[in-house]
Amino acid sequence: MARPSQKDAILDAALACFAEVGFAGTKIRSIAERAGVSQGALYRHFASKEELARALYADGMGWIAEALAHVVDGGGTATERLRAATVGAFGLYREHPSSFRFVLTWAPDFCSPGDVEPPLAILVRLVSDGQTRGEFVEGDATMLACLVMGCIVEPIVLATNAPGLVPDVLSDDSHDSAIADFVVAALARHGR
Amino acid sequence: MARPSQKDAILDAALACFAEVGFAGTKIRSIAERAGVSQGALYRHFASKEELARALYADGMGWIAEALAHVVDGGGTATERLRAATVGAFGLYREHPSSFRFVLTWAPDFCSPGDVEPPLAILVRLVSDGQTRGEFVEGDATMLACLVMGCIVEPIVLATNAPGLVPDVLSDDSHDSAIADFVVAALARHGR
Repeated sequence: MARPSQKDAILDAALACFAEVGFAGTKIRSIAERAGVSQGALYRHFASKEELARALYADGMGWIAEALAHVVDGGGTATERLRAATVGAFGLYREHPSSFRFVLTWAPDFCSPGDVEPPLAILVRLVSDGQTRGEFVEGDATMLACLVMGCIVEPIVLATNAPGLVPDVLSDDSHDSAIADFVVAALARHGR
Repeated sequence: MARPSQKDAILDAALACFAEVGFAGTKIRSIAERAGVSQGALYRHFASKEELARALYADGMGWIAEALAHVVDGGGTATERLRAATVGAFGLYREHPSSFRFVLTWAPDFCSPGDVEPPLAILVRLVSDGQTRGEFVEGDATMLACLVMGCIVEPIVLATNAPGLVPDVLSDDSHDSAIADFVVAALARHGR
C-alpha cells in the first residue's frame, strides 16, 4: 500500500474529528494535530474547514456513486440489481463507515455532489427500469427510490445515534439479506 | 383557543429558532426576543438552552407516541393498523412539522424520551403482533420496525434537506397511501 500523502492524512483526520464532535465542534487546529502536520501545511492544501468538508463529501459521493452505478447498470433483472445494490450499500458502509455516514446522513448543507450522480438519482434509474420491465409496481419512481434509501439509511442512523436500540449493521451483516428482502417485496409487482 | 402562556411562547420560539439555524447556532437571546419576553423571564422557566431542547423533545415525543399508540393498540388487523400508523404519521407531521422534524430527525443526542414509549418501540410492538397473527413475515421485529421508520423519516428528511429533489410530503398528501402500500407489501407474509 502506498504511503498516504499529507493531503490524505489531513482528510482522514478531518473525517475522524467531524465524526467525533461534529463539523461545528471541530477546530482546524485539532485536525492539524491529529494529522501530524502544522496548521500552515494544512492551509496549503485546504483554505478552510468548509473546503475540507466539501472535499470529503465529493470523495465519499464519488466512491459510493461509482460502486452503486456499477451494480445498477450491470447485468441481471431489476430485482436482482435492487437486491445487490441494497446488500452492497451495507458492504460499502462497513468498508468506510465514517465517510458513508458523513455523506449520507449528516454532511453540512453547503456540500454538493458536484459532477457525481447522486445515489438517489441512481436508485431512481433502477426503479424506473424495473417499472419499464414490469418487475416493479407503478408509482412515483423518485418517491419509491427515496423509500429504498430510507431502508438503507435508517438502520445506520439509528444504530449510530441510539446504540443498543437496533441491531448494529456495522458489526453484524446478518440483517443485510432481510433488508434486501424487505425492499424487494415492497417493490415487487407480483404479490400486490 | 386559550391565550398561549409565556412558557408556551418560549417553547414555540425555541423550536422556530432551532429549525432555522440549528441548536448550536441558536442564542438564548434570540429565543427571548422572538418570544417577546426578557431573558430574565426566559430563565425563570428554563435554566438553559439544553433544558429547552429537552422540554421540546419530551413534548414532541409525547404527542407522537400517544397518537401512534392509539392506532397501534386500536382495533383491526395488524396490516390495517400498519397502514393507518404510516398514513397517520404523515398527518402528524403536517400538523406540527417543526416539532416532528426535531423529534425524529435532528434532536441533540442529550435529549431522551423520558417516560414516553419511543415511537420505534411502538412500531416493534405492531410488527411482533402481526408476526404472531401470521400476517407479517418472520424476522427481527426491531430491524423490520426500523425499516418502517425509515420509510416515514426519509421522505421528510430528504424533502427538508434537499428541497426539490423528492416530492414534498409536507404540502402534498398524495404519496401517503403509496408509502403505506410499500411498507404493507414489504411486511406481508403472503406474496413472499
